[in-house]
Amino acid sequence: MYRTNTCGELRLADAGKTVTLAGWVQKARKMGGMTFVDIRDRYGITQVVFNIEHDAALTEAANHLGREFVIRVTGKVSERTSKNPSMPTGDIEIIADELEVLNPSEVPPFTIEDESDGGDDLRMRYRYLDLRRNPVRRNLELRHRMTMEVRRYLDSKGFLEIETPMLVGSTPEGARDFVVPSRMNPGQFYALPQSPQTLKQLLMVSGMDRYFQIVKCFRDEDLRADRQPEFTQIDCEMSFIEQDDVIELFEGMAKHLFKEIRGVELTEPFIRMPWADAMKYYGSDKPDIRFDMKFVELMDIMKGHGFGVFDSAEYIGGICAPGAASYTRKQLDELTDFVKRPQIGAKGMVYARVEADGNVKSSVDKFYSQDVLRRMAEEMNAKPGDLILILSGDDAMRTRKQLCELRLEMGRRLGLRDKNKFACLWVVDFPMFEWSDEEQRLMAMHHPFTHPKEEDIPMLDTDPAAVRADAYDMVINGVEVGGGSIRIHNSELQAKMFEILGFTPEKAQEQFGFLMNAFKYGAPPHGGLAYGLDRWVSLFAGLDSIRDCIAFPKNNSGRDVMLDAPAALDAKQLDELNLVVDIKE
Amino acid sequence: MYRTNTCGELRLADAGKTVTLAGWVQKARKMGGMTFVDIRDRYGITQVVFNIEHDAALTEAANHLGREFVIRVTGKVSERTSKNPSMPTGDIEIIADELEVLNPSEVPPFTIEDESDGGDDLRMRYRYLDLRRNPVRRNLELRHRMTMEVRRYLDSKGFLEIETPMLVGSTPEGARDFVVPSRMNPGQFYALPQSPQTLKQLLMVSGMDRYFQIVKCFRDEDLRADRQPEFTQIDCEMSFIEQDDVIELFEGMAKHLFKEIRGVELTEPFIRMPWADAMKYYGSDKPDIRFDMKFVELMDIMKGHGFGVFDSAEYIGGICAPGAASYTRKQLDELTDFVKRPQIGAKGMVYARVEADGNVKSSVDKFYSQDVLRRMAEEMNAKPGDLILILSGDDAMRTRKQLCELRLEMGRRLGLRDKNKFACLWVVDFPMFEWSDEEQRLMAMHHPFTHPKEEDIPMLDTDPAAVRADAYDMVINGVEVGGGSIRIHNSELQAKMFEILGFTPEKAQEQFGFLMNAFKYGAPPHGGLAYGLDRWVSLFAGLDSIRDCIAFPKNNSGRDVMLDAPAALDAKQLDELNLVVDIKE
Repeated sequence: MYRTNTCGELRLADAGKTVTLAGWVQKARKMGGMTFVDIRDRYGITQVVFNIEHDAALTEAANHLGREFVIRVTGKVSERTSKNPSMPTGDIEIIADELEVLNPSEVPPFTIEDESDGGDDLRMRYRYLDLRRNPVRRNLELRHRMTMEVRRYLDSKGFLEIETPMLVGSTPEGARDFVVPSRMNPGQFYALPQSPQTLKQLLMVSGMDRYFQIVKCFRDEDLRADRQPEFTQIDCEMSFIEQDDVIELFEGMAKHLFKEIRGVELTEPFIRMPWADAMKYYGSDKPDIRFDMKFVELMDIMKGHGFGVFDSAEYIGGICAPGAASYTRKQLDELTDFVKRPQIGAKGMVYARVEADGNVKSSVDKFYSQDVLRRMAEEMNAKPGDLILILSGDDAMRTRKQLCELRLEMGRRLGLRDKNKFACLWVVDFPMFEWSDEEQRLMAMHHPFTHPKEEDIPMLDTDPAAVRADAYDMVINGVEVGGGSIRIHNSELQAKMFEILGFTPEKAQEQFGFLMNAFKYGAPPHGGLAYGLDRWVSLFAGLDSIRDCIAFPKNNSGRDVMLDAPAALDAKQLDELNLVVDIKE
Repeated sequence: MYRTNTCGELRLADAGKTVTLAGWVQKARKMGGMTFVDIRDRYGITQVVFNIEHDAALTEAANHLGREFVIRVTGKVSERTSKNPSMPTGDIEIIADELEVLNPSEVPPFTIEDESDGGDDLRMRYRYLDLRRNPVRRNLELRHRMTMEVRRYLDSKGFLEIETPMLVGSTPEGARDFVVPSRMNPGQFYALPQSPQTLKQLLMVSGMDRYFQIVKCFRDEDLRADRQPEFTQIDCEMSFIEQDDVIELFEGMAKHLFKEIRGVELTEPFIRMPWADAMKYYGSDKPDIRFDMKFVELMDIMKGHGFGVFDSAEYIGGICAPGAASYTRKQLDELTDFVKRPQIGAKGMVYARVEADGNVKSSVDKFYSQDVLRRMAEEMNAKPGDLILILSGDDAMRTRKQLCELRLEMGRRLGLRDKNKFACLWVVDFPMFEWSDEEQRLMAMHHPFTHPKEEDIPMLDTDPAAVRADAYDMVINGVEVGGGSIRIHNSELQAKMFEILGFTPEKAQEQFGFLMNAFKYGAPPHGGLAYGLDRWVSLFAGLDSIRDCIAFPKNNSGRDVMLDAPAALDAKQLDELNLVVDIKE
């Protein structure tokens, strides 16, 4: 037994007890004949006191402790004369009788404090030290509690967690697979799953009825800040259900998590917003509805007054930022620069202030009469003191996305995107297909197994681009935390879908034959969804990146800088795998 | 809403209700004007009755249902006239008013019954149909319940489940890695983890204190019946603990599982058997102690009487099979053939029967006086009616392993290996090293991070082969379900260990530098263990192979015959990975 207690649990009621603690030296300070050592473990910090009058040799030893030394201390719990109300153990201290250095430590490359002086790179290289910091450790604790609660909830609803294989077959459709050469099957490769999509559908064919899995998935994509080559999904599937059943059950799960993890009771049903409305009012399929500022289309009002930019536009839309009429020229220029950044790509921005007397002062005053501008302000429901921001363009969808970015930026500037406020909704009625300029064909917006809306099935023959799907995304604070669909369980409908997606019957058979064959033996109606665990945890933790809720993340080049992976292989290993590396210059 | 109830839940109390069920047609049989259809889902089977007098058209439709059709039926719950007490729903039936075929089915390639007529190969190819069978489905349900209980137990003990990466670095030491080429880092490879051993040790350095993970691990080995290229571990690690703490906590977990999953209360502490005793008395580091039949060494008694085989032996040992003196010549010949099989490799077997009058009749009577044979029987504690079986050889360890196989075979023949009886123990005090003939050097028996027993540390310099480790295995019914060790947390001791294992400092740094560096910053004393989940589930399920507790297992060539993976890659994929396949003839 190395310790009798953790460093986080002793209280005044324990005074008088002899205890043994073990942990890391957070800091040590000498004050006259006394030396105070803060000893830390996962559970907290306790102050230990060495007194030269009590034990001179021991106090001398304590004076040689460095930060992050691992020590064991035995002593008596004693009431502090000057208590520290900001620490749970702040009422007591340990009067040390014994001290053992279990392991010394070199000086760490950055300070192990809530606010560290370590840069991102250094923190990742020494991630095992970074994880000692409270804010990082707390993210992992949160992640553990979330997965425990997800499992408890789904288990209580009759779901079985079933492990699907990690070594599967490669499907060139979709994102790039990570592949694994097989030594026992020379020249052949496994793939790591991008998701267990087809396997969970097979589990429905096998009658498992309710399946879930918290599972690693893999995608070999060029990485962005919020992407990792390996990520974790809460993957779920159910049989004999309709869209409403899935939404109800998983809305219940979200509410359960909010209550258990964040202490937030969400009593209202989540809004269900058709995809078309989400695009029209927010320019996004994952609208942040913590704040309003909906788009208003201004084509009717603003066109035909001689302002060439608007007159030639395919879309003109604005948002009304409440109380922002006081924005200075400098602030407005910042916003204009913001929308003109290449990542956003707008050509410019028109603004209009609603003044106290109701007059509207705009950047395009010379083209519009006060009457037109007032009608515009009225259409936008703008009040005196509000600021109207307008974008236009020759591609409605692209302009809406630009306006979406502007809306989010204004929300941020006006403090409307509070990380401790949560606005959840379902986006529903997604289009079945989207046009790919690159491939010059329709692509499945979700995946080829998504069921079209029953009433839209006839349009598959006449106007497939207009067909909507039984697909749904759960969106929280502008983040898509999960999404799914009802699946096709009828082999003829599936075959038609493959045809529209440009698969020859042979290619469909080659890639998805195992699934289409399985569907011949009595597939039940089924559907499901998958959550991105990393995203959901970082949302609950209030993080800007998913990286800090992952114990050992990879950087933007897909490298683990701590392990220094990936790396070159031994020639013998390559040889056994019948592989030759051939790097093109 | 597709159904009001499942096929397993209706009882007599529900009589009179109108319900809707959905599921698969288990069977349909026509009897006069009535058609009985058994409808099945994961939860059970319910009988549905179609009556030509009640609805002729509907009954006609029911007559066209085939096995495994997916149907939906609405009707009234009604008390059966002839009840079926062997079915939970056997008191009732549904008088059908509506029938909908949700999906037809081709005739399945084997029957979906508890005892199937499908061979192993066919079952694996159509695994999604095989999983519909009760015994297979129950294994997956058991697996789910076990992982839920493991998580509940460990969570209650303060463990955090922390995900470690799947894309790590390759370590040529140990078994073969599966590797993953990196497109973004040309010519470099990740490896899939053989276990998260070093990562969980880093988590201890990071102060996580108590970690667990139920996690996929990968080993590219030539496969045997009970091995899979990917398998699942319950992986655990703790800080500030000694061997007793680990054993106590995980013995508690085992007892919790036995109680919750199997309804077995294990009240006694598990035996802790030194490895040397396990080898001496059972010839195995995973003894099956459901039955006694311990080895007795007979060198003193049986040597020097002119029987050349024994006289030249380095080991002579026997087991006493109670009540087996009645074994016929044929049965004894079978046993001799058994030990002479190449997999076991004994040269022969000596037997001796203890007769009713205490006389001992042996196969080597001409070399031994009755007096010697009686002393031998006494030494073996053999009673009249018992059968003594003796093996000898010139390599004690090899002969003990042969005798172990014979003991297990006799236990099986005598019905002493009841799958519903559980005998658990800890094997402790493993040797630190074992000699590798192939490598001509000492190898770590567990892994290079295992802590030697404190009192044996001085022998590291003088007699490393005699050093014992703080390592422990949990064994149930002759199966090693888990094992682990206390780890080295001192960098000097770790460096010495690498030296004994023949690592140059450069090689140690190259392969384990990240761990040794981490240990410089205050590593706590720590240790842990890992369970093989697949094995443990199959033990609880009474299976002979781990395959049937895995949803989608691979065959002995590492192939998934259902997915037909692995397979050749597109040239484009290989090209992006800078790889050329070069198969040697």
